[in-house]
Amino acid sequence: MLRTIKSSNVVSNSCRNLRILNKYRVSASGVSAFRMMNIASRNYASIPPRELKYTNMLKDPSTKYTPGPTVPQMKGKRQWPNKTITKAPRWLSTDLRDGNQSLPDPMNMEQKKEYFHKLLDLGFKEIEVSFPSASQTDFDFTRYAVENCPDDVTIQVLVQSREHLIRRTVESLKGAKRATVHVYLATSDLFRDVVFNMSKEEAVKKAVEATKLVRSLTKDDPEQQGTIWQFEFSPECFSDTPVEFAVEVCDAVKEAWEPSAEIPIIFNLPATIEVASPNVYADQIEYFATHISEREKCSISVHCHNDRGCGVAATELALMAGADRVEGCIFGNGERTGNVDLVTVALNMYTQGIPPNLDFSDLKSVIEVSEKCNKVPVSPRAPYGGDLVVCAFSGSHQDAIKKGFQIQEKRQKNGDPLGKLWRIPYLPLDPQDIGRDYEAVIRVNSQSGKGGAAWVILKNLGLDLPRQLQIEFSKIVQDTADSRGKELKSDEITELFKQTYFFDENIKGAWELVDAETTKSAQDGKIKNMIVKLKATSSPTELSLQSEGSGHLSCLVNAINNWMDLNLEIKNYAEHALTEGRNSKAVSYVHLQYTKNGKINYVWGIAANEDVGDASLNSVINGLNSILRR
Amino acid sequence: MLRTIKSSNVVSNSCRNLRILNKYRVSASGVSAFRMMNIASRNYASIPPRELKYTNMLKDPSTKYTPGPTVPQMKGKRQWPNKTITKAPRWLSTDLRDGNQSLPDPMNMEQKKEYFHKLLDLGFKEIEVSFPSASQTDFDFTRYAVENCPDDVTIQVLVQSREHLIRRTVESLKGAKRATVHVYLATSDLFRDVVFNMSKEEAVKKAVEATKLVRSLTKDDPEQQGTIWQFEFSPECFSDTPVEFAVEVCDAVKEAWEPSAEIPIIFNLPATIEVASPNVYADQIEYFATHISEREKCSISVHCHNDRGCGVAATELALMAGADRVEGCIFGNGERTGNVDLVTVALNMYTQGIPPNLDFSDLKSVIEVSEKCNKVPVSPRAPYGGDLVVCAFSGSHQDAIKKGFQIQEKRQKNGDPLGKLWRIPYLPLDPQDIGRDYEAVIRVNSQSGKGGAAWVILKNLGLDLPRQLQIEFSKIVQDTADSRGKELKSDEITELFKQTYFFDENIKGAWELVDAETTKSAQDGKIKNMIVKLKATSSPTELSLQSEGSGHLSCLVNAINNWMDLNLEIKNYAEHALTEGRNSKAVSYVHLQYTKNGKINYVWGIAANEDVGDASLNSVINGLNSILRR
Repeated sequence: MLRTIKSSNVVSNSCRNLRILNKYRVSASGVSAFRMMNIASRNYASIPPRELKYTNMLKDPSTKYTPGPTVPQMKGKRQWPNKTITKAPRWLSTDLRDGNQSLPDPMNMEQKKEYFHKLLDLGFKEIEVSFPSASQTDFDFTRYAVENCPDDVTIQVLVQSREHLIRRTVESLKGAKRATVHVYLATSDLFRDVVFNMSKEEAVKKAVEATKLVRSLTKDDPEQQGTIWQFEFSPECFSDTPVEFAVEVCDAVKEAWEPSAEIPIIFNLPATIEVASPNVYADQIEYFATHISEREKCSISVHCHNDRGCGVAATELALMAGADRVEGCIFGNGERTGNVDLVTVALNMYTQGIPPNLDFSDLKSVIEVSEKCNKVPVSPRAPYGGDLVVCAFSGSHQDAIKKGFQIQEKRQKNGDPLGKLWRIPYLPLDPQDIGRDYEAVIRVNSQSGKGGAAWVILKNLGLDLPRQLQIEFSKIVQDTADSRGKELKSDEITELFKQTYFFDENIKGAWELVDAETTKSAQDGKIKNMIVKLKATSSPTELSLQSEGSGHLSCLVNAINNWMDLNLEIKNYAEHALTEGRNSKAVSYVHLQYTKNGKINYVWGIAANEDVGDASLNSVINGLNSILRR
Repeated sequence: MLRTIKSSNVVSNSCRNLRILNKYRVSASGVSAFRMMNIASRNYASIPPRELKYTNMLKDPSTKYTPGPTVPQMKGKRQWPNKTITKAPRWLSTDLRDGNQSLPDPMNMEQKKEYFHKLLDLGFKEIEVSFPSASQTDFDFTRYAVENCPDDVTIQVLVQSREHLIRRTVESLKGAKRATVHVYLATSDLFRDVVFNMSKEEAVKKAVEATKLVRSLTKDDPEQQGTIWQFEFSPECFSDTPVEFAVEVCDAVKEAWEPSAEIPIIFNLPATIEVASPNVYADQIEYFATHISEREKCSISVHCHNDRGCGVAATELALMAGADRVEGCIFGNGERTGNVDLVTVALNMYTQGIPPNLDFSDLKSVIEVSEKCNKVPVSPRAPYGGDLVVCAFSGSHQDAIKKGFQIQEKRQKNGDPLGKLWRIPYLPLDPQDIGRDYEAVIRVNSQSGKGGAAWVILKNLGLDLPRQLQIEFSKIVQDTADSRGKELKSDEITELFKQTYFFDENIKGAWELVDAETTKSAQDGKIKNMIVKLKATSSPTELSLQSEGSGHLSCLVNAINNWMDLNLEIKNYAEHALTEGRNSKAVSYVHLQYTKNGKINYVWGIAANEDVGDASLNSVINGLNSILRR
């Protein structure tokens, strides 16, 4: 096996460098000629890596760690990479067993009950509730689950391959409508050697004995016929067990159980510890699925842990490789890095158009129950559930999302079939589908561009700001976020906008428009001049200005220029209805240029009014007020 | 495409059921005969799924979501599933750019500097520090990075394909020893359509223009020859771009840049949004790697996000598929679910015996810097870094880990080469290699079995408890954890042990051994009788007991039985040296049976002493003290 300690390939061969130089001589264009001089020293590959100061880690870990397993048998045979997931698997929640085992503060009885009922609400039909032989609490909770679950739900319990524990376990299920006894046994070399000191033959024998015992106590017991019994067997840990041996053990177990195609035996093939990349697990599953006898009488279940951060991937690739059933926990609880996160696996299907048969439409309530009972927080970056995962902070992302929503809205209005699809950049899922709202989508900090703040203003005030105004306001938001050193919340941005542009009845600038009266030409009916009345807001001063011009706005600007030395000019003007319908207000945006101390400056004035004309005049006055405040 | 709303396959075909019944008649043994009666109603597959109360999610999401891309071109051609990762890639940290963009409270300048120097310490040789044209802060920090980085480190910056932004960006790198200009351009249908309204031809043209501009400003500029310039181009978002078009754009860009094998052009192929399972990404990378011209002049870089929770898997499979370089963030920061977590990718290599060339041996300090600067907590279940990931709570896990350590210690002592390997069940990595200690490995709550508490006592007090004592003490620990409703910490367990077994000089029972004097037989030199002196601890009472017996312990037990009505009997006895070497103490464990109120009870007595004989006598007295306290 090739091992390289240094990532860059040290090239010290002078011949090679010479060849490179020659090549440059031949092929380089004129501008490249001077690059020949120090090409050797600029050779990226010639930089030796810096010596790292490993304190604990080994320079060469191959002396201590061995590569994970591979399945060379599948070379040229594997089919899973050609497949996609097309339907939901059978789901098993192991939150109350495997998940609960790993909690610093395990659930108490009340929390277990609350969690159990939440799992039922989410649509789980198979729930592993406990290890009944391990403690009275687990036994008691099994009784609760048996007595309080709907008829179509199967209660599953775990037990080691030991007689007295199996007897106690079956006892806990008495009277269940549907029950699964889940037996596990060490089959990997490491576990057989280190933990149990057991040969392969002994393992097979023990597995068969345990199976026969469960069979005699359940489906073969005339008094147990009120229950639909399932049997689940886990070779532990499957992902580290030679595939041939896993098949051998399971074939023997199957023969002992005698399953039917209608109630198949469940072979759970756990990646108890994730030991290789997820493609290897898929190879193992496909090998098993294609080599186990009577495949139609087997339900292949996968139970992935996440030590290498690939639990979701391993589960998905295993489904392509032929698995029928998925075990895991909500938000991936469980020993160490946890079990695979069922929220992610299910919603990954959902976003590909596949109904997962689990209802995460109110994800907030799932998070609440999980955090309350598990006392482990859902990471802010957890797929789907994390606080930050439907948020965009970066300017370009915010911009793209805003455009996406606008285009889709237009398409919907036009009846374009594309409008029915979810096609929003940077958002693989409609947040509303999991009960999150759009308000959370765009958040604004000093890294954000114009799109974010503009989105907030559009959503909160209904203003579709002109592009240049977006840029101006975004800079104000960035500076404010920078100086406060934190993200600005939606209402802080809205408040900042109102204060900046006097966009609120209670926020007044120096001058207020009282009245504007125009005189029109008798000949052409066009505006000739205007008398504008202004009053000061902080004193009883009133002012009457008169000017000429060809329209409302030019008259007003001329009036102001007669009064103050500003060289005011309108550079841009836009308006739109604030809300749809008859009683809607109009909003006006005016971009003003002015001169102050010999320098040209710009300012935006904004105003809303029932009357379009008043809106535009007021926007100029608000612009003036901004100039006076600077 | 097959779509199934119901996960269970409803079988209502009566012929099929009949066939099953017939089969049972033929093959079933006698005990199975009665199972025929209600086989149809017990048919697992015949249970229709419960109706779920979706509030927001769609019953059939295929009306809104479309399946992700696949690469049918790779069918029968892909080689990556036959490969494994054998060496570390080139690493690029994008923490300071892509990671920082996503933080509710972005880093300030001081935090950026601290983070930057931490990245250098960890061994990163390529660091993307900013988007210099986006803000003055980013520009200024680029200058800091350029002026404060070692000669072998390349500073990378990101810029859009726009002229004035590119000019400003190159300016920020002036005087750098090594610099990478990273240009991106939308190539996916969604981004071209929705965000940029740009055709494929326009995209290629824009990419080539941007490349030529960067070239003229950098490697072709005579005044810029002090810098080793690299060029990186990202087609956005690659994972949603038709592979043929991605190759077309990149071929055009490469032709414009004219890279060499020594300083290859970097093609970064981002999964900007994770849109499919990780095998599809690997197919895309392998397609690109096998179709781009002049492969030897290209460094293929991957930049995975984690929307589907498969960022690590996608990165690993992409490396098998031919990628040379990995971009990501420490603990996976970045927009939404974040970028791929480089800690996991690097340590996954490490645990397979491959030197990652990044030093995470002091992971605690990395967590500290990350949490301080990013203000986003590292999840307790994050691979390698999470608080809980080197912990085992479940009894069977704790047991297996304890056995693993013991066997490896033995192997090391015996010079067995297996002893040099890391072969501990449930722990893929030696916690000490990342600066975490074994104390954290086993934590004890009410779910824990005997192994956990026994491990703590072994580590803290050096006591290797006999199996039955482990069971007894573990029950005490469980009850205590249950009644306190929380995990017991290592020192709480140790204290509980001392209190329970009087295993501390300051914890005294009712009676204390003062002296024991034996008389030996003149004939055979064997013990005949003993005088034991005891004193009460809470009063000045002293007691002298005399008895006969064949040894120290039997004399003492007889003496106690003469004194009290207990029917004391020794059921089990064990001892071992407490520490190695001459001055070590001995520790004795005695399992006592006694009768109280006509009922048989058991108790363990434990004591340590420099003298083996005194240790054993004291263990019986401690057992007696326990009986008297009950």
